[in-house]
Amino acid sequence: MTDATIPSTAREIHLAARPTGVPTVANFALVERPLPALADGQILVRNTWMSVDPYMRGRMDDRPSYIAPFQVGEALEGSAVGAVIASASSIPVGATVTHFAGWRDYSVVDADTATPVDTSLAAPQHYLGALGTTGLTAYAALVDVARVEPGDTVFISAAAGAVGSVAGQIAKRLGAARVVGSAGGAVKTALLLDEFGFDAALDYREGDLAGQLAAAAPGGIDVYLDSVGGEHLRVAVEAMRPAGRIALVGAISGYNGPTGEPGPDLYLAAVKELSLRGMLVTSYLPRFGEYIAKAAGWLADGTLRTRQTVYDGLDQAPTAFLGVLSGANTGKMLVRLP
Amino acid sequence: MTDATIPSTAREIHLAARPTGVPTVANFALVERPLPALADGQILVRNTWMSVDPYMRGRMDDRPSYIAPFQVGEALEGSAVGAVIASASSIPVGATVTHFAGWRDYSVVDADTATPVDTSLAAPQHYLGALGTTGLTAYAALVDVARVEPGDTVFISAAAGAVGSVAGQIAKRLGAARVVGSAGGAVKTALLLDEFGFDAALDYREGDLAGQLAAAAPGGIDVYLDSVGGEHLRVAVEAMRPAGRIALVGAISGYNGPTGEPGPDLYLAAVKELSLRGMLVTSYLPRFGEYIAKAAGWLADGTLRTRQTVYDGLDQAPTAFLGVLSGANTGKMLVRLP
Repeated sequence: MTDATIPSTAREIHLAARPTGVPTVANFALVERPLPALADGQILVRNTWMSVDPYMRGRMDDRPSYIAPFQVGEALEGSAVGAVIASASSIPVGATVTHFAGWRDYSVVDADTATPVDTSLAAPQHYLGALGTTGLTAYAALVDVARVEPGDTVFISAAAGAVGSVAGQIAKRLGAARVVGSAGGAVKTALLLDEFGFDAALDYREGDLAGQLAAAAPGGIDVYLDSVGGEHLRVAVEAMRPAGRIALVGAISGYNGPTGEPGPDLYLAAVKELSLRGMLVTSYLPRFGEYIAKAAGWLADGTLRTRQTVYDGLDQAPTAFLGVLSGANTGKMLVRLP
Repeated sequence: MTDATIPSTAREIHLAARPTGVPTVANFALVERPLPALADGQILVRNTWMSVDPYMRGRMDDRPSYIAPFQVGEALEGSAVGAVIASASSIPVGATVTHFAGWRDYSVVDADTATPVDTSLAAPQHYLGALGTTGLTAYAALVDVARVEPGDTVFISAAAGAVGSVAGQIAKRLGAARVVGSAGGAVKTALLLDEFGFDAALDYREGDLAGQLAAAAPGGIDVYLDSVGGEHLRVAVEAMRPAGRIALVGAISGYNGPTGEPGPDLYLAAVKELSLRGMLVTSYLPRFGEYIAKAAGWLADGTLRTRQTVYDGLDQAPTAFLGVLSGANTGKMLVRLP
């Protein structure tokens, strides 16, 4: 079960202190701790890639939510992929698995919480992005929650991000007549048009989001995928055509605390018969097999384009995380571990 | 087709001037106008009851909406019921019909926009309330939009009003375990408990709506029927259990213009996987026959309790309308015409 290549310690990123508002690197600490011996049913994983995601900001606060807060002085958690280097379970050494005990270079994981992945279908890091929960979020949001129909005009926020960049391409596959994305800055908006197949791209940093959206979708929109809340959500509610559907998958603009911004005018939701539905990707895990089978094919044939923003080394994980909150990433934000 | 009992003029309530903010009686004018001769396919109706409803406030503004604005210098419109006294259609003289050309004592109506009603099932005025669009609104909101399930805890705003008072009773019929209503003042809250079968009643005029709701539904709520927007909607979103459903049927608190109040925190809608769905009763007219058949039975056997607030005389219609905007009504607000 163990041999000379098995480390005795792991390096972990701990929550050093809870942030107030926007977090800084001072909220994190890199700590080395002894690795426990494997208990029956556990595996030891050498992590090769880890994911940092905006929703993690919520877990840094000590408040009741759908998922427990991170604990001060303990390792953070998040998705990671890596190689099994020791096993007291039926998952063999050498397998590649995804699991939820990231933010460290070596993780001891209960095997029944790890998912072996097929690296012949796609490179391991895709299982944290397009073939991971961000891809599944895009798929479930458009198929199950907002229910894109052929001919729809679809608006996607954070469209150069991990969820949005996949969502734009899935919307087109579902028959959307027009897909409009918003992103921050000219580099990202160019990417939406040139790489991810959007029909129009809005640069929210230019201001007048409502005017930009009206120009890009003069007849209004049928579907909106909201990852950001705030002004985007208000503008989208106003631009919605009757019976429009909004998938609420997050609200980055509010993750650091109340923005003081007004919410959308839900009187408009009443009289336009809009539907606004929240989703957590964990409710759509039964779709995962079906989704991966499809999306791996799209990746393989080149029809699903993805980008990653990669930081190297566990010590860069806090910086990568702060970056994903401020839109420093294009596509999926990843940390590569040597 | 005409005889000596047929009047040559009708009295109408006109929009005299568009209101800014809260309307006053100065926005209305009582005008007498010649009645046109019946064209083929038309009927002349002597109105006996007319309905005033909060949504009409929106039609007093000159802005695009789901329904055309009222025109200054023209008669207002709304639901009414009355007796056919002349007919150039297949609807016989003597029939009782509902139609949409209210706010006048005599209406010339295209017969295909009038609906004969069965006064052996219920008194005519019920077809403007419990058996009319307000009753259907309550039914569709709970059955189709918010989908009440047995065991649910249901919260209903404006619960002493025309929609809310019926909705509370329908929620119990659908198997709700606990039905909480809010209303303004001790008289109305007592009525919720004593007459309409609510399990708990909140008096929003007492303040601390969130605290009152938490006391009345300590485990949270599964369904909320929103007729008012504003603080009620914010508090309900906060109190919602995961996968809760909100039916948005109006927003009285905002009808007189922007309130400046913040909208609900839709980040909570994302992470609790809430559904917020707007509805217009006109989308549920195919349900009308089914609903009337059921509700007429409930009225007849006394299991559906209703209240009306009645103003007498066409000249009182503006006062009645201002009253329904400020919560002066209990149950359905009606104007009785002599």
